[in-house]
Amino acid sequence: MDIERVNQYLQDLQGTITRELQAIDGAVTFASDRWDRPAGGGGCSMVLRDGAVFEQAGVNFSEVYGDNLPASATAHRPELAGRQFRAMGVSLVIHPHNPYVPTSHANVRFFVAEKAGEDPIWWFGGGFDLTPYYGFQADCEHWHRISRQACEPFGEAVYGKYKQWCDDYFYLRHRNEPRGIGGLFFDDLNEPDFEQAFAFMCSVGDHYLPAYVPIVERHKDDEYGERERNFQLYRRGRYVEFNLVYDRGTLFGLQSGGRTESILMSLPPVVHWRYNYQPEPGSAEAELTDYYLQPRDWLAAGDHG
Amino acid sequence: MDIERVNQYLQDLQGTITRELQAIDGAVTFASDRWDRPAGGGGCSMVLRDGAVFEQAGVNFSEVYGDNLPASATAHRPELAGRQFRAMGVSLVIHPHNPYVPTSHANVRFFVAEKAGEDPIWWFGGGFDLTPYYGFQADCEHWHRISRQACEPFGEAVYGKYKQWCDDYFYLRHRNEPRGIGGLFFDDLNEPDFEQAFAFMCSVGDHYLPAYVPIVERHKDDEYGERERNFQLYRRGRYVEFNLVYDRGTLFGLQSGGRTESILMSLPPVVHWRYNYQPEPGSAEAELTDYYLQPRDWLAAGDHG
Repeated sequence: MDIERVNQYLQDLQGTITRELQAIDGAVTFASDRWDRPAGGGGCSMVLRDGAVFEQAGVNFSEVYGDNLPASATAHRPELAGRQFRAMGVSLVIHPHNPYVPTSHANVRFFVAEKAGEDPIWWFGGGFDLTPYYGFQADCEHWHRISRQACEPFGEAVYGKYKQWCDDYFYLRHRNEPRGIGGLFFDDLNEPDFEQAFAFMCSVGDHYLPAYVPIVERHKDDEYGERERNFQLYRRGRYVEFNLVYDRGTLFGLQSGGRTESILMSLPPVVHWRYNYQPEPGSAEAELTDYYLQPRDWLAAGDHG
Repeated sequence: MDIERVNQYLQDLQGTITRELQAIDGAVTFASDRWDRPAGGGGCSMVLRDGAVFEQAGVNFSEVYGDNLPASATAHRPELAGRQFRAMGVSLVIHPHNPYVPTSHANVRFFVAEKAGEDPIWWFGGGFDLTPYYGFQADCEHWHRISRQACEPFGEAVYGKYKQWCDDYFYLRHRNEPRGIGGLFFDDLNEPDFEQAFAFMCSVGDHYLPAYVPIVERHKDDEYGERERNFQLYRRGRYVEFNLVYDRGTLFGLQSGGRTESILMSLPPVVHWRYNYQPEPGSAEAELTDYYLQPRDWLAAGDHG
């Protein structure tokens, strides 16, 4: 198991994604913050703010390690106790200006816990998901087509399994509402072997830009007014609610003394809450929740394009 | 134990507070929403939006009851299992426009669980706390002087105990930062007897307006610009972080199928997050965290005015 290759892949992925997003934005570049974790490791947070296309794009790389996992991590996995651990990943959230461009999130990560004389315990996790404000059938189909392509070399059932996991995970129970139109979510992946699991994580990482960029390009110059902007700002509240109430990575990070500013880079720069807001029935705003945010098989037509 | 008197007090309190805030605002009135809880009970949510003084003021009354408490409520209090319960309270959060006027929160509540042939199990809880954006010594002293006055008839140690509990409770661990300058917080109060505990809850409820209104009056016409407004919007992010990550009432409400819109009425109507923002050292913005948000005895000078 060559952990350095995982590390190198993740750092390269951060570079690739930030370069590409920067090129699309055209107006503003990413600023980098390197930071150390006092208990071991550190990271590099890259943020682009107030661009032409992106209101905020945050792409984090981190690698943390230590002699002891926090109690919260070993409570459900006692086999991890007393092991040295190393966790690394790239995590990103993109909040565009234009309400017709969806917010996107991606994450790929690797965890390993070692002990002299014993086999390492390791797994990969990650995925990506899309959160539109205004729905477009073609965007949803494209996003899921690329999601499926990322999975196809790894078996017929892979896309369906991780698509379902994504729908289940990114769900706001207090709203009875999915966060977005889904994508892929996987965790605890340690089969069939390190090489194949690593290859799958790379495939997910590599398919994020092909999934997202065409959708950004298609809508970044769409005309919009105050109505669409207000709706976007209102819907961003759901993003905050999900990340602060449910997201395991966010809560674990905050509770375990992670770097707060890097963790909360996922939160949108401007958000509105409006008591008891209901979109007008039949409007594009109502269609978001009535149609697009209903979990469905976006590729039901069966094309494998 | 006359539960209807508690109910009546709480409904009257909602009326008194909304009338007074409406009079101060002068421009906009509260809208009322009555709602039913399918499993038993209901409430009345009153919201004032886009007023002259208040950007959003939400004052909730609710009374819920049922035959069985959720598992999460009985896990730590097995003596409650199998009892009929009744819970009622008033909860409010006020978000003013002017960044020089602090946000305030107050809550008073009563819980009782009954079973034929056994003594009822009951307690009162509540408190109020203040979250300024720009600090003023006189405001902090006034707020805590009224807090102390609310407690004084009930014993010498009461203010200090509930002031400390408030400082401990309204604390963002991931920021190492208190939410505001505190006030009072109490819970599980069932001594020395029902009448006295009820009287204390009423005293807290009755002292909220005398604590808050003079501060609103003092600053509602203070001049401010984009800088102060932006700082207020940024700091409101802390309010969201606290309520969604830590606040037990919010999380219990969301998890137990409470009315989401009434629970999340506490969230500010407009919020900003800004990656790694640091106020200029020595500025009024830095003074907020460096001085005002450091827990302290605001009445140390010893006056009992």
